[in-house]
Amino acid sequence: MIIVMKPTATKDNLNNVVKKLETLGLRAHLSEGEEVTIVGVIGDKKTIANLEMNMMEGVEKTIRITEKYKMVSRNFHPQNTIINVGDIEIGGDELVVMAGPCSVESLDQLREAARAVKSAGAKFLRGGAFKPRTSPYDFQGLGEEGLKLLRQAADENDLKVITEVVDKDDIALIENYSDVIQVGARNMQNFQMLKALGKSKKPVLLKRGLSATISEWLNAAEYIMTGGNEQVIFCERGIRTFETFTRNTLDLSAVAAIKELSHLPIIVDPSHGTGRWQMVKPMARAAVAAGCDGLIIEVHPNPEIALSDGDQSLKPKNFARLMEELKAIAEIMGRKI
Amino acid sequence: MIIVMKPTATKDNLNNVVKKLETLGLRAHLSEGEEVTIVGVIGDKKTIANLEMNMMEGVEKTIRITEKYKMVSRNFHPQNTIINVGDIEIGGDELVVMAGPCSVESLDQLREAARAVKSAGAKFLRGGAFKPRTSPYDFQGLGEEGLKLLRQAADENDLKVITEVVDKDDIALIENYSDVIQVGARNMQNFQMLKALGKSKKPVLLKRGLSATISEWLNAAEYIMTGGNEQVIFCERGIRTFETFTRNTLDLSAVAAIKELSHLPIIVDPSHGTGRWQMVKPMARAAVAAGCDGLIIEVHPNPEIALSDGDQSLKPKNFARLMEELKAIAEIMGRKI
Amino acid sequence: MIIVMKPTATKDNLNNVVKKLETLGLRAHLSEGEEVTIVGVIGDKKTIANLEMNMMEGVEKTIRITEKYKMVSRNFHPQNTIINVGDIEIGGDELVVMAGPCSVESLDQLREAARAVKSAGAKFLRGGAFKPRTSPYDFQGLGEEGLKLLRQAADENDLKVITEVVDKDDIALIENYSDVIQVGARNMQNFQMLKALGKSKKPVLLKRGLSATISEWLNAAEYIMTGGNEQVIFCERGIRTFETFTRNTLDLSAVAAIKELSHLPIIVDPSHGTGRWQMVKPMARAAVAAGCDGLIIEVHPNPEIALSDGDQSLKPKNFARLMEELKAIAEIMGRKI
Amino acid sequence: MIIVMKPTATKDNLNNVVKKLETLGLRAHLSEGEEVTIVGVIGDKKTIANLEMNMMEGVEKTIRITEKYKMVSRNFHPQNTIINVGDIEIGGDELVVMAGPCSVESLDQLREAARAVKSAGAKFLRGGAFKPRTSPYDFQGLGEEGLKLLRQAADENDLKVITEVVDKDDIALIENYSDVIQVGARNMQNFQMLKALGKSKKPVLLKRGLSATISEWLNAAEYIMTGGNEQVIFCERGIRTFETFTRNTLDLSAVAAIKELSHLPIIVDPSHGTGRWQMVKPMARAAVAAGCDGLIIEVHPNPEIALSDGDQSLKPKNFARLMEELKAIAEIMGRKI
Repeated sequence: MIIVMKPTATKDNLNNVVKKLETLGLRAHLSEGEEVTIVGVIGDKKTIANLEMNMMEGVEKTIRITEKYKMVSRNFHPQNTIINVGDIEIGGDELVVMAGPCSVESLDQLREAARAVKSAGAKFLRGGAFKPRTSPYDFQGLGEEGLKLLRQAADENDLKVITEVVDKDDIALIENYSDVIQVGARNMQNFQMLKALGKSKKPVLLKRGLSATISEWLNAAEYIMTGGNEQVIFCERGIRTFETFTRNTLDLSAVAAIKELSHLPIIVDPSHGTGRWQMVKPMARAAVAAGCDGLIIEVHPNPEIALSDGDQSLKPKNFARLMEELKAIAEIMGRKI
Repeated sequence: MIIVMKPTATKDNLNNVVKKLETLGLRAHLSEGEEVTIVGVIGDKKTIANLEMNMMEGVEKTIRITEKYKMVSRNFHPQNTIINVGDIEIGGDELVVMAGPCSVESLDQLREAARAVKSAGAKFLRGGAFKPRTSPYDFQGLGEEGLKLLRQAADENDLKVITEVVDKDDIALIENYSDVIQVGARNMQNFQMLKALGKSKKPVLLKRGLSATISEWLNAAEYIMTGGNEQVIFCERGIRTFETFTRNTLDLSAVAAIKELSHLPIIVDPSHGTGRWQMVKPMARAAVAAGCDGLIIEVHPNPEIALSDGDQSLKPKNFARLMEELKAIAEIMGRKI
Repeated sequence: MIIVMKPTATKDNLNNVVKKLETLGLRAHLSEGEEVTIVGVIGDKKTIANLEMNMMEGVEKTIRITEKYKMVSRNFHPQNTIINVGDIEIGGDELVVMAGPCSVESLDQLREAARAVKSAGAKFLRGGAFKPRTSPYDFQGLGEEGLKLLRQAADENDLKVITEVVDKDDIALIENYSDVIQVGARNMQNFQMLKALGKSKKPVLLKRGLSATISEWLNAAEYIMTGGNEQVIFCERGIRTFETFTRNTLDLSAVAAIKELSHLPIIVDPSHGTGRWQMVKPMARAAVAAGCDGLIIEVHPNPEIALSDGDQSLKPKNFARLMEELKAIAEIMGRKI
Repeated sequence: MIIVMKPTATKDNLNNVVKKLETLGLRAHLSEGEEVTIVGVIGDKKTIANLEMNMMEGVEKTIRITEKYKMVSRNFHPQNTIINVGDIEIGGDELVVMAGPCSVESLDQLREAARAVKSAGAKFLRGGAFKPRTSPYDFQGLGEEGLKLLRQAADENDLKVITEVVDKDDIALIENYSDVIQVGARNMQNFQMLKALGKSKKPVLLKRGLSATISEWLNAAEYIMTGGNEQVIFCERGIRTFETFTRNTLDLSAVAAIKELSHLPIIVDPSHGTGRWQMVKPMARAAVAAGCDGLIIEVHPNPEIALSDGDQSLKPKNFARLMEELKAIAEIMGRKI
């Protein structure tokens, strides 16, 4: 931590700051500039992490230098982490595509979706059995029945399953049916759920919160890793901005940021990221070119009658065309689909 | 819902839209303008709520006209709702002030805080026993031990208690110690917790999410109300914007918005809303002048050694001065402290 | 400036950083922490202001410690600046209210507005003769004819005039008719216009840009002051956020921020800040309680037929009622209207 | 326009709304739903554009259906517009890359940059002679001398020139030296400058404002086109959000949005869009894959001593490598560099 003193700070103000640091077992390292004095705080990282100095007289502001996360950091683990789901590797040479409907509605719907996404090259079937919805009057999902249908349709088509958890009490149940557990944007800082997922044996896909900074997102992953589960996959799905033409603003620079700061894989969700099916194709291509490790895309056999998010779902035919385009770009990026 | 057709939409496109609506039991009401045709959708509200039409050919966009929430709405319940906590009325003539430290640290700390806020005129003691923290390495709170200390210090000073729940499994425990249960910003769309709080007999203080719109916030309260608990108090605590000088941007227009749209009370948290103790005083005054029903303010007997959020906590002396100023403004607003 | 080295930085990396600083005549002050080394940069402020170090090998990031503005800063000029417009003092004991229609439309309209705002206690007549409009097809203002009407209606009612400049070529013209020159939000960083206003003898009201930080706003004012015109008044008018219920998010914490960082006066525009006439009243009261030096409010004798921004304009009767409420709050704040 | 009446609106309220519309020569088309009545407004587009109804009693809200821009719209001009700059086509089969330093500093610097970007495949030399800077103490550019150097270095290397205008009085001067005139983000709504550029014979590159919506950006281009200059190129350069890791948030979905709504070309600036040279490469690739028509990239022979924006500039060697990668992706997109 750096403490910047006010230009008007007195010698006494400075002494009190130094004294407080020393009381806490920390050391102060002074830089006297032309206008202001700066105090570098040296010592135990955890003590510094909890240190607050802004209310001391003569202090202009404090600046934190180091991030609090460790295990997610590339400094801590320089090589890329590869997460294995059966014979599929996320974060390796493969570009892993997860596809399927927003909500699980029926076995027919899922079977049709599963066949379509499998034949186009997807490796995972996605679908929501527990849905976090803005309004209590919206469809909340089929629950365990939905999980069963999802598993069945996936197994029939040799696909893995990814589905969302919205309640920590459901983790054990979901583990029975799903290969990867998804944490949605609204639960990215549901710390109790993150802690519980730290005890899971299944990989966790951690979506970025609607207004989460890169730093907060990394810290959220740290909750899972410190709990003992090191299989975390990030998922960029758009952030909330002033723009209203798109549902969210898909921040593809997050792919580059995560690759720089962390060793964990990152995939992209262009469906929620834009909220418009016409934009899924260009943004999926862009995500691959930005260097992501995979994609999660909404595909519905009949989006016009979908129970949720039909506006952003691709029809199977469009999805198949998109996969063709992605293969070419993935190849340039040294990836195979 | 209004469906706006493209200028290039064909007669067939329009017919298909109308046919889909009729299939769902809805009626289409057409307005042919000079450039575009607009389709008004009339019929069952729930069916319309789940309707998605953007992927139909010839459709430019759809616009939702009505909000999904009902019970929280002033249209549904024109008079102000008053929430009783013992002999205290929130949303009535009284301006209710809740104050205390961010985290419960010790009995001494709480006793000193409780005495100070009581003598200045506060009616509730606030303090966190379960803390939602960005990093797993930060202090996570004292848990049930903290709840006990909070209750004891409040009882000794004839204060009510408000404290935060971060896990739905803790609701029953917290009900034993607290008069009002607080839902933090990060849990505003933790829908499982909201549903569980719908079964509680205690009033719920629902903080606004960091990037929650007014509409989403009202829908979150609807989750609690539809569960059976009609005692919801809103709390504006700052939203996330591009500005970095303040920790959040306190949106006082939310007070006027909630008063217009809902019958439920709203209080303001100028401490988290600004993150700077110097700003708590002017923003607390402004909140009262904007018409809020109460305030929740961080007060710490010794903010320089606080375990969390010391930077935004007032010392007892400053809090007492603030209360004097608030009394004068409250009086003009027809309120008493 | 503080330079934070990477944990993996080599001795050579550090030497190169130090060497570059010394070449530029700066001094490096090293703090070796447990994890990272931090380099404090000491020396000529201007050299440091233009220094960029992030692309040097081994550098993690750089942090700027000091702001670039000087003349606007309270450190530079601790006492509040009072700006005199005839016998009116902005920034002194008076709470100065400026009111009138968004656009100048006719002499009748202005006369009616001027009489109404004068009798309610306003000191300035506001009105736009040159309008910055999002679309080229929107009404662009009456130009010089509008300025004449504005001056006439103001003079007949013993009011001062404030009006907006949208083109630096119009400054001389506007000086002939207006007592204060307004810079709109979209021109806050029109640096050529700011430089030209630095040569004006008239006070400048500088509205905050839609996405301007407090720091950028202060720097924009510095452009005017370094040009020689020290009469700058800030005006908070709402920032752009994700919220769509209000036209902008009025950031009243900006009042406290400007009061802390600068000696210049600040007023608030609750009309543009909310975009809804129903919210002007509560937000105007809140602004005064937050400590602003004045208000600028849209009042239109007949908002239902206004050529612009009728949705956010008060009728004269509502304005008069608001002024009554403001007087009471101003008194508590030690101000008179 | 759609007018949504309140559930509590009376018959009289509705009659008054209809009467007002009819007085203005407009027609009202009523849809009576279960809860609310909706009024569709039909008639002259310009009258509707200026219509404001929110202040009428019984009105809940108004919703604008149609955008105000015409000439920029793809509805108005379905085919892609190609802009010719000598033998270069922007918006056609070519992916046009513009590169060079942020600021013009010296002939040596420009020559070195020009040679490097030319040999890597760029078609334009970029460089600022007039710089819009946040602080008046920052380097403001070399002015006309800079324009001369830019033209000379470009001519020696058979490159076109693009440079920024910050003052409408400089347009004629810049036309003498530059092939394309750039409008920076801070001037996107400097409407007087846009009007003046409407009279220019040179193509205009219109950067998106820091907080400009897609709609506002299109309207800004409409100002130039209605002035008579139909050669407008959009440039996405990052928007302002809450994220601080990057300087801005590069919104690549804007590429898809502009392609859908307009016939004009769009290029992307990954240098300002991220503010970090490490991110330029992945985001440039992503922009091409998203379907942009070109890129503008900062390249400096020696970014470590650049007078501005060195942190986001590529060294010539890195730029050459990037161009190799871009060629492969452009090919897949059916483009050549």
